[in-house]
Amino acid sequence: MNIKITGTGSYIPDTIEKNEAFHEHIFLNNDGSVINSPNEVIIEKFQAITGIAERRYAKAHLNSSDLGFFAAEKAIIDAKIDPETLDYIIVAHNFGDVKHDTIQSDMLPCLAARIKHSLRIKNPKCVAYDILFGCPGWIEGVIQAKAFIKAGMAKRCLVIGSETLSRVIDKHDRDAMIFSDGAGATVIEATEEEGGILEHECASYTYDEAYYLYFGNSNNQALDKNTRYIKMDGRKIYEFALTTVPNAMKTCLDNSGLDIKDVKKIFIHQANEKMDEAILKRFYRLYRTEIPEGVMPMSIQTLGNSSVATVPTLFDLVRNNQIENQSLKKGDVLIFASVGAGMHINAFVYKY
Amino acid sequence: MNIKITGTGSYIPDTIEKNEAFHEHIFLNNDGSVINSPNEVIIEKFQAITGIAERRYAKAHLNSSDLGFFAAEKAIIDAKIDPETLDYIIVAHNFGDVKHDTIQSDMLPCLAARIKHSLRIKNPKCVAYDILFGCPGWIEGVIQAKAFIKAGMAKRCLVIGSETLSRVIDKHDRDAMIFSDGAGATVIEATEEEGGILEHECASYTYDEAYYLYFGNSNNQALDKNTRYIKMDGRKIYEFALTTVPNAMKTCLDNSGLDIKDVKKIFIHQANEKMDEAILKRFYRLYRTEIPEGVMPMSIQTLGNSSVATVPTLFDLVRNNQIENQSLKKGDVLIFASVGAGMHINAFVYKY
Repeated sequence: MNIKITGTGSYIPDTIEKNEAFHEHIFLNNDGSVINSPNEVIIEKFQAITGIAERRYAKAHLNSSDLGFFAAEKAIIDAKIDPETLDYIIVAHNFGDVKHDTIQSDMLPCLAARIKHSLRIKNPKCVAYDILFGCPGWIEGVIQAKAFIKAGMAKRCLVIGSETLSRVIDKHDRDAMIFSDGAGATVIEATEEEGGILEHECASYTYDEAYYLYFGNSNNQALDKNTRYIKMDGRKIYEFALTTVPNAMKTCLDNSGLDIKDVKKIFIHQANEKMDEAILKRFYRLYRTEIPEGVMPMSIQTLGNSSVATVPTLFDLVRNNQIENQSLKKGDVLIFASVGAGMHINAFVYKY
Repeated sequence: MNIKITGTGSYIPDTIEKNEAFHEHIFLNNDGSVINSPNEVIIEKFQAITGIAERRYAKAHLNSSDLGFFAAEKAIIDAKIDPETLDYIIVAHNFGDVKHDTIQSDMLPCLAARIKHSLRIKNPKCVAYDILFGCPGWIEGVIQAKAFIKAGMAKRCLVIGSETLSRVIDKHDRDAMIFSDGAGATVIEATEEEGGILEHECASYTYDEAYYLYFGNSNNQALDKNTRYIKMDGRKIYEFALTTVPNAMKTCLDNSGLDIKDVKKIFIHQANEKMDEAILKRFYRLYRTEIPEGVMPMSIQTLGNSSVATVPTLFDLVRNNQIENQSLKKGDVLIFASVGAGMHINAFVYKY
C-alpha cells in the first residue's frame, strides 16, 4: 500500500495588496522609535530580501474557514471522490477565524467542523479536527493522515491549510508586509499505485526557540497593550531555518534511499525568498552538488507568506502549470519542507 | 503490542467559585430580556440540573498552557519516564491562552510548544502540536497517540487537555455557571503488558449540529458586538448527546468483544450531571441491563465543566483514590466517552 495525494485545490483571494499600499504606513522599530528611512527605501529593501512585490488579502466578509472550504471543494473535485467517503478532515491554521476588523479568534466549533458543515458532508464517521503547528501545519496534517492510514484507521483524508494573516498584523511593523491570506487543500489516499509519500521528518525546537514567533504588542506603544499581533525575530528564524531545514530534508531523502540527483522539485514554505534560497543552497551543499535550475518553484513574489497555505497552494499551482516554466510528470521525486512558529520543522519525500 | 496509559496528572486550580458568587449577576435571556426569577431560584434550578455547586478558576497570572504544564509534570513523574524520551506532546484545548481580563486567544506558538518549553525538553524529535476538537479533544488526542504508535511513528506520547473557560464566559448568561478551568495529562505508551486501549470510536456531526456550541455575543445587548463568548443551545446538545454517545460506547464495547457485565467504570465528560446520568441510563438500556452502583464516577459537583480537562482529571482522581468510594484495580474494564463542540463525540474501551 502507498499513500498518495490524489487531488489538490487552492483558494487565492482576489484582493491584491501591492507594496505601494504600504507607502503611507508609519513603520516603527520594536522599541517604538521612528525608522530613519523614507518608506520607499524601507519597502525597496523589504522586497529585495523577501522577494515579495504583492500579497493577497481575503475579502472582508470571508473568514479563514471560508477560504479553506473553497480550496477543499476544488481538491475534492480534482480527486474525483465522493466527499462522503472521507475518513478525516484535518485543518491546519494558527489563529482560527478572525473576522475582519475584530481581534478575537473564533474556533468554536473548530474550523474543520465548519468546513465539513459547508461541504454538506453527512457521514459522521468523517472526523474533522484542527491542528496548530505554526506554518508547517499543512505538512504535519499530511504526516498525520499518513499515520491514520498506516494504522488502518483511515483510507482517505482531506488535509487543508488556511490562514488570514492580514487580520493579525501590526501595521507599524515592517514585517506586516510579509504576511498574506490563502488556503490550500489536498486529498490523501491509500492506493496500490506506485509512489506517494516515501519518508517524512518532523521536529519541534522549543528549548530556546519557542518564542521566535509570538503574539505581541504593536510597535506603536500608544496602542492598547491588550491587543496583540503576529511578531517575529526574523534574524533568529533565518539562522535557525538555515541549519535545521536542510538537515531534515537530507535525513528524509537519505532514508528514502534516493539520490540527490533524483530530486526534481522542492516545495518549500514561502517565508522569505532569500531564506528559501539560502536553505536550498545549504541543502545542495550537504551533497556537494550543484543546484539544478528551476528545482524550487516560488510563489512568494505575488502571493506573500500565507503560513500553512503556501506549500499546498504552490503545489497546486505547479501541478496545474500555473507557474512559468514549472511542471510535474509522473515519477518525479519531490521534497516538501516547512518551518515556522514553535519552532517546528518538517519535510517529506514524495514520488509523484 | 498494547497501548496503555502509564501515568496521569491533573491540575485543579485553587480558586473555588461557589454558586453564591453568582447571586449578584444580572442574568438575561438570549434575546436580552430579563429573567423573571430571583437569582437564588435560577441558581437552585441550575444546580438541580447540572449538579454543579462550585467550580474552579485559574489564578489571574496563569494561562491554559501553565495549567497544562503543571498537569504534564505530574503525569511524567507518575509514569516514571524521562521526558526526553517522549515522541509526541499532544495538547487539546479550544481557546488557546486567554490572558485574564483580555479577549484575544494566544496560540502563537501553539500550547504544546509552550508546555514542551516549560518542561525543558531538549529533544527536537519530540513533536509538539495542538488539536482543536471541542470537549472531546483529550480523548481524541489519545486516539491520535494510538494512531502514531500503531503506525510505528511513536512509542511514548504525552496527551494533555487544558482549558480556562472562565475567561470566555458571558456573565449575563446562566450557562456561565457551568464552565470552569483545569488541566489533565496522561502518558500513553506502547507496552508488552496486557490490556490498554482495546477499541475506539470517533465521529463528527456537523451537518445540522456544527453550531450547537458557538462563539456569540453577550445576552446583554448593550455590550460590544465584537466581543464574543462561549454559547450553547443546551436543549439540542442534550438530545444529541443522549442518542449519539450511548451508541458510540456500545459500538466500541461490542467491537472489543467484551460484555456489558465486564464494564467496571465509565469516565464520561463532566458536562452536566443530569445529561451524564441520562446517557448512562440509555447506554445500559441498550443492553437491557441494570446500572451497577458507582459505575460512573463524577467530579462535576465541585469541579464544574472544564471541557477537555474533565475526563483526564476525573481519571487521575479515581486512580489516586481521591473520589469517595471510587477506586480501580488491575484488569478493570473502563469506558471513556465525551461529547462537545463540533459536534464531536468519541469513546474508547480500556483494560486497566
